[in-house]
Amino acid sequence: MGLFTKLRERVDAFLHDEDLKRKLYVIIFESDTPKGKLFDTCLIGFIIASVVVVILESIQSFSYHYTFALRILEYVFTAFFTFEYLVRIYCSPRPKKYIFSFFGIVDLLATLPVYLSFFFAGTRYLIVIRAFRLIRVFRVFKLFNFLKEGNLLLKSLRISAPKIFVFFFFVLILVTSIGTIMYMIEGNQPGTQFNNIPNSIYWAIVTMTTVGYGDITPVTPAGRFLSAIVMLIGYTIIAVPTGIVSATMVGEQRKRSRYKCPNCHQDGHEELAEYCKYCGSKLENYNSGK
Amino acid sequence: MGLFTKLRERVDAFLHDEDLKRKLYVIIFESDTPKGKLFDTCLIGFIIASVVVVILESIQSFSYHYTFALRILEYVFTAFFTFEYLVRIYCSPRPKKYIFSFFGIVDLLATLPVYLSFFFAGTRYLIVIRAFRLIRVFRVFKLFNFLKEGNLLLKSLRISAPKIFVFFFFVLILVTSIGTIMYMIEGNQPGTQFNNIPNSIYWAIVTMTTVGYGDITPVTPAGRFLSAIVMLIGYTIIAVPTGIVSATMVGEQRKRSRYKCPNCHQDGHEELAEYCKYCGSKLENYNSGK
Amino acid sequence: MGLFTKLRERVDAFLHDEDLKRKLYVIIFESDTPKGKLFDTCLIGFIIASVVVVILESIQSFSYHYTFALRILEYVFTAFFTFEYLVRIYCSPRPKKYIFSFFGIVDLLATLPVYLSFFFAGTRYLIVIRAFRLIRVFRVFKLFNFLKEGNLLLKSLRISAPKIFVFFFFVLILVTSIGTIMYMIEGNQPGTQFNNIPNSIYWAIVTMTTVGYGDITPVTPAGRFLSAIVMLIGYTIIAVPTGIVSATMVGEQRKRSRYKCPNCHQDGHEELAEYCKYCGSKLENYNSGK
Amino acid sequence: MGLFTKLRERVDAFLHDEDLKRKLYVIIFESDTPKGKLFDTCLIGFIIASVVVVILESIQSFSYHYTFALRILEYVFTAFFTFEYLVRIYCSPRPKKYIFSFFGIVDLLATLPVYLSFFFAGTRYLIVIRAFRLIRVFRVFKLFNFLKEGNLLLKSLRISAPKIFVFFFFVLILVTSIGTIMYMIEGNQPGTQFNNIPNSIYWAIVTMTTVGYGDITPVTPAGRFLSAIVMLIGYTIIAVPTGIVSATMVGEQRKRSRYKCPNCHQDGHEELAEYCKYCGSKLENYNSGK
Repeated sequence: MGLFTKLRERVDAFLHDEDLKRKLYVIIFESDTPKGKLFDTCLIGFIIASVVVVILESIQSFSYHYTFALRILEYVFTAFFTFEYLVRIYCSPRPKKYIFSFFGIVDLLATLPVYLSFFFAGTRYLIVIRAFRLIRVFRVFKLFNFLKEGNLLLKSLRISAPKIFVFFFFVLILVTSIGTIMYMIEGNQPGTQFNNIPNSIYWAIVTMTTVGYGDITPVTPAGRFLSAIVMLIGYTIIAVPTGIVSATMVGEQRKRSRYKCPNCHQDGHEELAEYCKYCGSKLENYNSGK
Repeated sequence: MGLFTKLRERVDAFLHDEDLKRKLYVIIFESDTPKGKLFDTCLIGFIIASVVVVILESIQSFSYHYTFALRILEYVFTAFFTFEYLVRIYCSPRPKKYIFSFFGIVDLLATLPVYLSFFFAGTRYLIVIRAFRLIRVFRVFKLFNFLKEGNLLLKSLRISAPKIFVFFFFVLILVTSIGTIMYMIEGNQPGTQFNNIPNSIYWAIVTMTTVGYGDITPVTPAGRFLSAIVMLIGYTIIAVPTGIVSATMVGEQRKRSRYKCPNCHQDGHEELAEYCKYCGSKLENYNSGK
Repeated sequence: MGLFTKLRERVDAFLHDEDLKRKLYVIIFESDTPKGKLFDTCLIGFIIASVVVVILESIQSFSYHYTFALRILEYVFTAFFTFEYLVRIYCSPRPKKYIFSFFGIVDLLATLPVYLSFFFAGTRYLIVIRAFRLIRVFRVFKLFNFLKEGNLLLKSLRISAPKIFVFFFFVLILVTSIGTIMYMIEGNQPGTQFNNIPNSIYWAIVTMTTVGYGDITPVTPAGRFLSAIVMLIGYTIIAVPTGIVSATMVGEQRKRSRYKCPNCHQDGHEELAEYCKYCGSKLENYNSGK
Repeated sequence: MGLFTKLRERVDAFLHDEDLKRKLYVIIFESDTPKGKLFDTCLIGFIIASVVVVILESIQSFSYHYTFALRILEYVFTAFFTFEYLVRIYCSPRPKKYIFSFFGIVDLLATLPVYLSFFFAGTRYLIVIRAFRLIRVFRVFKLFNFLKEGNLLLKSLRISAPKIFVFFFFVLILVTSIGTIMYMIEGNQPGTQFNNIPNSIYWAIVTMTTVGYGDITPVTPAGRFLSAIVMLIGYTIIAVPTGIVSATMVGEQRKRSRYKCPNCHQDGHEELAEYCKYCGSKLENYNSGK
């Protein structure tokens, strides 16, 4: 029996060590045990620290003095996150499901940029994607009520999505047309910023969304007249997405307020209530967004 | 029988070739057959391509090198759209109805600017009106749900229209008055941008709609005080169109949720449902926006 | 019997000529007869023309050439409006009620500025107040539905007024505090625009209402951090007036939809309906905003 | 019996003089008696005057001439407010409760800055916190209805708080990521304002909240394209807080309209009603925000 066979055996045993996997799973994926909680708290600390490092690195007066220290920290964090990612795959009962889950993809994207930066300079900054890992914070600190709110928000947005998609399709056609007309009106002014249609479309979006930077502004009377009309249109259609989301939320809330206690059949429960306020029985499916 | 009579006969036969008309109609107006789908997909591709050509043409650094190619492409697209427009009229069972329909007018406007540009320089850019032809995309790809959403949006806007019209009438009177008062306050500052009442009205609209370019800003204490008041008024009345549209949408949604299944007379169906969730019978007129 | 007594008699007879008064009243105050309609249409034309004259006068390149013509037109319009005002008082059955009504006051304010301009230069521009006389347009052209919409808008705003008043009281305290803190942070930067507290308060209002001119902007890290927080606060509290007005409008609409036909007691009438859709009887008090 | 004992006795008697305390309490804390009303009116006048003094002091052209007078006024007001604060503690039946109440803390913070300014220059301006004392104005002038509106607003905001908190958590992650990507795109332009990630995050917040100062703007095509997308995202998610607050307010209003008169059990009472419109009995707990 050679060294290689021995090694392979060891690796095999390790890969099938169900007991170790279960232990690691409890620590890494769950946060009910003291060890699990400690791990998750450290993890969140590391994520925030690594995002702060990236931000500090971009400040010249700062990075000039501490380049080396910041770079070392960055590599340490990346090594830790890479290791953590591999352990997560290892101890997950169904690795594939984890890898293709939302968190699995974010965890991968959170480490890749540093490795890519060896080949493409500048991609290093993409590691702020790590910030998205912070969404775990709700799970870790048992902020279930907040998660529920998040679900309700997401559900309202999802229900509103087709309406909002249609809305943006029309907005896109509108800003293209308006941008072109403004280019025709203002384009031949000396030194104008409306020097091509893409810039005019950019102006139309800046104006319609009421952002109004002022880096591109009309100077001719006709241009000012048209842009006043564009603003009033923007002012009116700003109401449309708001109306859509408001109507959806009112609808969702009404559904909840119609929910009847499964035991005593009375309705009108407080938002986020867990138990019926009349008979004390559990309100099932009440806050799950149904 | 001369050549002319023969030609006339041919044209006559062509103009009354009902079989050909039906075949073309199925390809051009419908999109259920493979050929029809292919035609519509190509058409959408051509529309996008021709809008992109117009946009590229406006970018100087680009059009400098490719003027000729872009101009050729533009003429090719225009020839194709003109031909398509004529075929549509030819094969339509009721040509007049098509010509004066929304799409008929857009199809005409999508070709005219190029011909007009022979007489009036600059009108060429108006061919971005072609972008509106893209609304067909919903029909082609059977995005009926999206069309329904569009209808609901349009209906809500149509119901809200009189309220919004009254609202804008008052806004117009308001910005005229505010613009004049600002002209009186700031107009005699050296180098001021408030140099006449139309510019001051433009400023009032820019401020009230919260766009705030910053190309015209007050510098005197009195002007700043008045503009702070204008902003707070704008902040409050921005709520009005939003409130109007929201209330209409909530109302529309409630109407839907009151809709009773024609078979079992139960209400509370999901948005966009096609069949009654209690007895499975078809929900007629439910999603059509009634 | 001297000349004076004769004159006095004449004036007396004129002042009590009820027949003339009634005739003038029908022409000036009502708009059901052809003459009344003609008078009101002319009046609206004159109002618009006189506002346009004021606006044109402010444009230097224009007024330079036509000063005299514009001034003459202004005096003609003012003479006409003054005469009309006096006739309105003369033929009104209850003059005092007219004088202190909304339109009575606007009619007076629409003529005064020109007379004041003999004493105080610059007040002449105040005659744009004439624009408010245009509100008559709804009555003249029988746009009753629009008037009703206006009433509903005004009613919603009136109901919301106390909430909005409280809201602005807090906003005022907030912008005063934020302005002062920003003055403390940015005030000692060289060349800063935050050079005193009123300017900082002006900045706080510009920022909170999301207008964002950019004429005053923070440059220090601390100032930028604070202003980011101010923006996010503004972003959230922009929701409050909208929420107030939306909720009021939804409430008003629900009241209407609960309205029962006085004859057949069925509800659910279309907005703006005049007659019951079930039995055809008049829906009293339905659209009056009750 | 020495002087010291005598003094201690006096102080002791003073500290337990329940009659004096009651008298002072009626004047200072209540505002039903003429004296109480007078005191509160003066107090509000003093608060406004002292805030105005701070604002005037910051205006250089003004403070240059009146430094001394303004400083004297400031000390007088501070002495008065300090004395008033001590008297409030003295005459309050439960001093601790007052000290740690909202008004107790504000009253303390309203005097501290002047004393702190002896040690830390510049903190003097913090005395605008006094503005928050003005909230008393509602109690003093019996503007109970306004207070109720304030309560309803606060309640709606409190109920919405968890949703808004979750919303801002996501906004924070979003602006961090967008800011970093913009830094990667625009950061190497000569003379760019996107010179580090914190500035880019500041830009992202300015853009997303639709404030749009224009002090930092993209100049590259890629940067303008990304910022157009950021604006459209901001335009959509501006709807979310509005939707949240609107839905809550609609919900709160519906709860009220469901309130049944305790006597005749009929609902649908007007907002702010005090008595049942059917039987005239008092509507208890109706407007208290329950």
